Amino acid sequence: MERHKANPLIVPKDVKASNAAYQVLGAFNPAATSFKKEIILLLRIAENCVPEKDYVTIPFYDVNGANTIRIRKDDKDLTFKDTRGYFYKGKDYLSTISHLRIARSLDGVNFLVDHTPFIYPTLPEECFGVEDARIVKIKDLYYINYTAVSGDGYVTILASTEDFISVQKIGIIFPPLNKDVALFPEKIKGQYMALHRPDNKGFGLPSIWLASSPDLINWGNHKCLLRPNGSKEESQKIGGGSSPIKTDSGWLVIYHAKGDDSVYTLKLLLLDIDDPSRIISIGKTPILSPQETYEKDGFFPNVVFTNGTIEKDNGELWIYYGACDETVCLFKTSVFELLLRLNK
Amino acid sequence: MERHKANPLIVPKDVKASNAAYQVLGAFNPAATSFKKEIILLLRIAENCVPEKDYVTIPFYDVNGANTIRIRKDDKDLTFKDTRGYFYKGKDYLSTISHLRIARSLDGVNFLVDHTPFIYPTLPEECFGVEDARIVKIKDLYYINYTAVSGDGYVTILASTEDFISVQKIGIIFPPLNKDVALFPEKIKGQYMALHRPDNKGFGLPSIWLASSPDLINWGNHKCLLRPNGSKEESQKIGGGSSPIKTDSGWLVIYHAKGDDSVYTLKLLLLDIDDPSRIISIGKTPILSPQETYEKDGFFPNVVFTNGTIEKDNGELWIYYGACDETVCLFKTSVFELLLRLNK
Repeated sequence: MERHKANPLIVPKDVKASNAAYQVLGAFNPAATSFKKEIILLLRIAENCVPEKDYVTIPFYDVNGANTIRIRKDDKDLTFKDTRGYFYKGKDYLSTISHLRIARSLDGVNFLVDHTPFIYPTLPEECFGVEDARIVKIKDLYYINYTAVSGDGYVTILASTEDFISVQKIGIIFPPLNKDVALFPEKIKGQYMALHRPDNKGFGLPSIWLASSPDLINWGNHKCLLRPNGSKEESQKIGGGSSPIKTDSGWLVIYHAKGDDSVYTLKLLLLDIDDPSRIISIGKTPILSPQETYEKDGFFPNVVFTNGTIEKDNGELWIYYGACDETVCLFKTSVFELLLRLNK
Repeated sequence: MERHKANPLIVPKDVKASNAAYQVLGAFNPAATSFKKEIILLLRIAENCVPEKDYVTIPFYDVNGANTIRIRKDDKDLTFKDTRGYFYKGKDYLSTISHLRIARSLDGVNFLVDHTPFIYPTLPEECFGVEDARIVKIKDLYYINYTAVSGDGYVTILASTEDFISVQKIGIIFPPLNKDVALFPEKIKGQYMALHRPDNKGFGLPSIWLASSPDLINWGNHKCLLRPNGSKEESQKIGGGSSPIKTDSGWLVIYHAKGDDSVYTLKLLLLDIDDPSRIISIGKTPILSPQETYEKDGFFPNVVFTNGTIEKDNGELWIYYGACDETVCLFKTSVFELLLRLNK
């Protein structure tokens, strides 16, 4: 169980901005899959506008694609909400906007990042960007789910690709506010299943839910699976990572927790193979906590977040993770090691 | 278009408490349907504990059914959150708790309220009560959806009955935070459809969404249909009422708006008959606003809220509505009158 010595594997300067008015601030939170001879990551690329003196330049998407709005900093209609957003003439805007970009590798360590976006905002529900994809192969199709953000909140959209060249957006599968959706890689008792993460602020804390579907598009039988456990590591929220991993002991889930001081850690959960609503065991301590400089200092400090893992033929499990909402890193372990860890 | 002169038709003292430790504070927000020769309302009955000197007595449900917790008012672990809730030893409690009760009538005006609950909290997701039902007849089955409340937030549960004697709970069809679900009474292009109301606070304002389903259980293809229009009447949120009414002009929807000073009003919306995601027209002014004493003074002042309508054979439309979260009232109009109103 160790961080790769080449971390961070991908940093913002490795990525070409999606248009001349934007600059890349983050290349992080990758989905991951094996495709032919390659390891493919689907990165979240966060961009903002190239700064200008006396002006705030805000990125947004509309029917014409990427756009920029220039407002004098002393404009009375402009309000700074916080570092993440502005309010201008009755509308909300974000300071950064994300799209999804493919990075390709033969060894899983050295990546070439595509020069153009793979999934780009085209729908009204995506006008503040698309974020944090997951990839799962079901039969011969690769399903991609991602978070779409707009003034209506964040939702989860399902898409599919056969070739990682073209992609088809299927539709919104979880309405607002919902993210951190992880599809199981196969049907269980005739139903597809997914972990999801409704935001129930004002009641409890955001928790991990389970749902089932006959067709991946329509979802029902929602059930709360796991709530934050009251510890300082889980004091704010928890949410699922990439697809649960099938093992002889059950479905292995790597989930993230956000705790005191907004520190993110990665933790383990084991679910019954035939009935994933039954929890077999929960890891007592995180398998990964911010420790290295690249995990502690960055755009959003003290974040390790995973939404992409690759199980190798030799039993190794490669956990790709985003550090500080800025870079891509790799943590190498094995399913066996993680199952041992669950019993500690 | 007029209020019934016998309003309010049902008041809390018409209702027997569900157990000796509780008292009824509200009998309101009825679902409505015709069943054999009767008009059936499914009322929301809100109860709290009979007050005690020196003690706060809090109602809640657990595996043993209705329960009460007695806490000395000076207990240091007790916090009063607001009029709606308490916090005690790490847990949230509500000051009132609701269940659903049938009221039966031959003339639609004089009702007899059942002495026992019809839908009662039995699931963990219902431990803070069940609220605001809708009834729709599809083929020979009556489907009931209602809001279930727990520490995990509010969700929408689907149930069904054939006879209004026994009822089967089917499951959670919309995860938190989601309420105000209105099922269309028939399939459209092979799919069931529903209005629903996610809570997207922190982004926009809670809006009316549309979803489709192959089976009433699994829902997808979510789309935002109508957002609050920026007026003082819709400054807080909007949400669907009972099932959309099929007319020659389109699907007629009566929805509620919550505006300045938390005043609720009822408004109209007309949707394309073959594609309900297409809005034909939106009523400019409310069809009902709090005006009578029983609509302005009560448990929660200035509320008119409908989740139950009956279309009579003679073309009349009887809109049952809750006033002030306390009583049941009736507003008589016709589909024709409402369609005329939409064009004004």
